[in-house]
Amino acid sequence: MENKICKLLHIPHPIIQAGMVWVSGGKLAAASANAGILGVIGAGSMKPDLLELHVQKAKSLTSHPERLAVNVPLLYEKTKEQLETALKLGIKTFITSAGSPKTYTQWLKDQGCVVIHVTSSPELALKCEAAGCDAVIAEGFEAGGHNGRDEITTLVLIPQVVDAVKIPVIAAGGIADGRAMAAAFCLGAGGVQMGTRFVATKESSAHDHFKAAVIAATSSSTMLMMKNVVPVRLLKNKFFDEIKMMEDRCATPAELIQHLGHGRAKEGMLDGNMERGELEIGQIAALIRDIPTVEVLVKRILAEYESAKLRL
Amino acid sequence: MENKICKLLHIPHPIIQAGMVWVSGGKLAAASANAGILGVIGAGSMKPDLLELHVQKAKSLTSHPERLAVNVPLLYEKTKEQLETALKLGIKTFITSAGSPKTYTQWLKDQGCVVIHVTSSPELALKCEAAGCDAVIAEGFEAGGHNGRDEITTLVLIPQVVDAVKIPVIAAGGIADGRAMAAAFCLGAGGVQMGTRFVATKESSAHDHFKAAVIAATSSSTMLMMKNVVPVRLLKNKFFDEIKMMEDRCATPAELIQHLGHGRAKEGMLDGNMERGELEIGQIAALIRDIPTVEVLVKRILAEYESAKLRL
Repeated sequence: MENKICKLLHIPHPIIQAGMVWVSGGKLAAASANAGILGVIGAGSMKPDLLELHVQKAKSLTSHPERLAVNVPLLYEKTKEQLETALKLGIKTFITSAGSPKTYTQWLKDQGCVVIHVTSSPELALKCEAAGCDAVIAEGFEAGGHNGRDEITTLVLIPQVVDAVKIPVIAAGGIADGRAMAAAFCLGAGGVQMGTRFVATKESSAHDHFKAAVIAATSSSTMLMMKNVVPVRLLKNKFFDEIKMMEDRCATPAELIQHLGHGRAKEGMLDGNMERGELEIGQIAALIRDIPTVEVLVKRILAEYESAKLRL
Repeated sequence: MENKICKLLHIPHPIIQAGMVWVSGGKLAAASANAGILGVIGAGSMKPDLLELHVQKAKSLTSHPERLAVNVPLLYEKTKEQLETALKLGIKTFITSAGSPKTYTQWLKDQGCVVIHVTSSPELALKCEAAGCDAVIAEGFEAGGHNGRDEITTLVLIPQVVDAVKIPVIAAGGIADGRAMAAAFCLGAGGVQMGTRFVATKESSAHDHFKAAVIAATSSSTMLMMKNVVPVRLLKNKFFDEIKMMEDRCATPAELIQHLGHGRAKEGMLDGNMERGELEIGQIAALIRDIPTVEVLVKRILAEYESAKLRL
C-alpha cells in the first residue's frame, strides 16, 4: 500500500492520526509514529512553550521523528510563534487549518517543509493547490469539532476534491476503521485522517470520562451546533442541551459566545467534566466500542482494509 | 457482480433507481429495468388511478416486468389502495418508507412479495428486520428529499446498519457514480440506490428546467431544511430562501407548513417553476454534469465501479 501519501509523509501506512485540541499530545503522536502512521500534535490548544514540551516528548518516545507533524489552526494570535517553535525542533510536516492556505504555505515550503491544509469544500481545495500545498485533507460534515458551513459529507466531498485538484487528497470525517479507509480509496483518496477513533486509545490525553462517553455513543449522540458562530460537532451532554435550547429560541451569536465562555473544551475533554464541558467528537463515535493501544488499533485497521478489499 | 441483492430483485446489476415524487414514472422505471437494474415507480405523488397508468406504461415498455418495483411512502391516506393497485398489476417488489415497517410487510410477504424498507438509522433497521423485510435501504443525510432527524451520513450509517442486521443492506444518499458504489460495497452494502443521478436522465419526468438546475448545482447548492416539520434536502432557490429566512427568525412549524402550502413539489420538479417550486435533490447533484439515457448511465457506472476496484 506504499503510495504517494506514504512517500510524502515518510510513513509505511497512509493514515494520519489527526491533531485535536486537548487530546493529541506528544504521547499519542509518538505512539502513532511508532505504529507506522503520521503522528500529529494538535497545537490548537497549546501555547508555544507547551507545544515545545509536547514536540520534545514525542521525539523522545519514537525513533521515527520524521513521522511527526504539528497541526496549527491559523486563527490564533500566536500562530507564527507556534510554527517557529515546531520548526526549531525539527518538525518538517505541517497541517494547517481554519485560515487561508496562502498565509504560511510558501514560507514553510521555503524551509523544506511539507504543508497540508484542511478543506471542507472543493473551492478551498483549489486555493490550497494554488497556494502550493503538497496535499489537502478534505473533511466532511460527519467529522468532530469545527466543520464547514456547507455541510458537505465525506462521501460527496472526496470525489469532488479529487476531480478538482491534482495534488493528493486525504479523506477525513466518518472514518474509524479499515472499511471506511477502503471506501475513501475507492473515492480517489490517497490517505485517510482519523480523529475520533484516536480519542479512544490508551495513549490519547482525553480524560477517561470522555473516552468512556465516546465508546458509549450511539448513532444519534452527536449533532452539528453553533452554526451561526462557528459550526462544531458536539457530543450530546448538559452543555449541548443548553446550546440547543438557546438555538431553538434563536439566541444571537453574542449570547451563544457568552454562554460558551472560556475553557469549556478543556473542561470537558481534558478535565473530564461531562456536564459543563464542550465535547468535540465525530459521528463515527457510534462505531467505536473499545480503547486499544495505537499499535493494536493500526494493525486492526490494516486488517479490516484488506478484508474490505476482498468484498469487491 | 451477481450477489444476494441481484438474486432477490431479479436484476443483473445491484443498483436501484430510486422512486421519487414527480420524477420516476413508468418511463424511467422501464428504462431502468431494460438497463438491468431495479426500476422503481415513485407512488408518493400518485393517486391509485395514476399509479395504475404508470405501472401499465412501465410494463408495456419492458420485457423485464420482474425488474419493476413500486415505492410507497406509508404516510398517505391511500397507501393500502396504492399497494392493492400495484399488486393487482403483478408488481412483486415493494419499497416502503416514512412509516412503520410493521404495517404492511407481513401482509405483502404473505402475497409472495419482496419488501424493502428505507431507514435512516440502525435502530429502525433492526425493526425492519424484525418485521420481516427482505432487505433495508439505509439512506444518509446527504440524500435528497425527506431525511432522518439524526443527520447520520451514508459513510457513518452503512457500517452501523451492516453490523446491526443480518439481512442485506442497500446504501443510499450521496451515490451517483461507480466510485461511490464501490465505496458502499467496501462498507458492507450489497447494493446501491441512486435518486438524484436518475433525475438528470433523458427518461426521468423531471421538468427540463429542473434537470438543468441539477446539472448546474455546485457543492453548496443544497441544504437540509424544515427540520422542525419534516427534514427535507432542497436545492437553493427563491422558495428555499424564503424558508431559510423564516427558520432564521424561528418561525413556528405551523407558519412553515402554511408557507409550504400545497403542490410546491409538483410546481417545481414537474412543472419547472424554478422560483416557487420545492426542489428536492441530493448533495451529490454537485457531481452531475450531463443528462444521459439510463442505458448509457448504467454502463458508465459499472465501468467506473471496475476502475474504482482497481484503485485498491
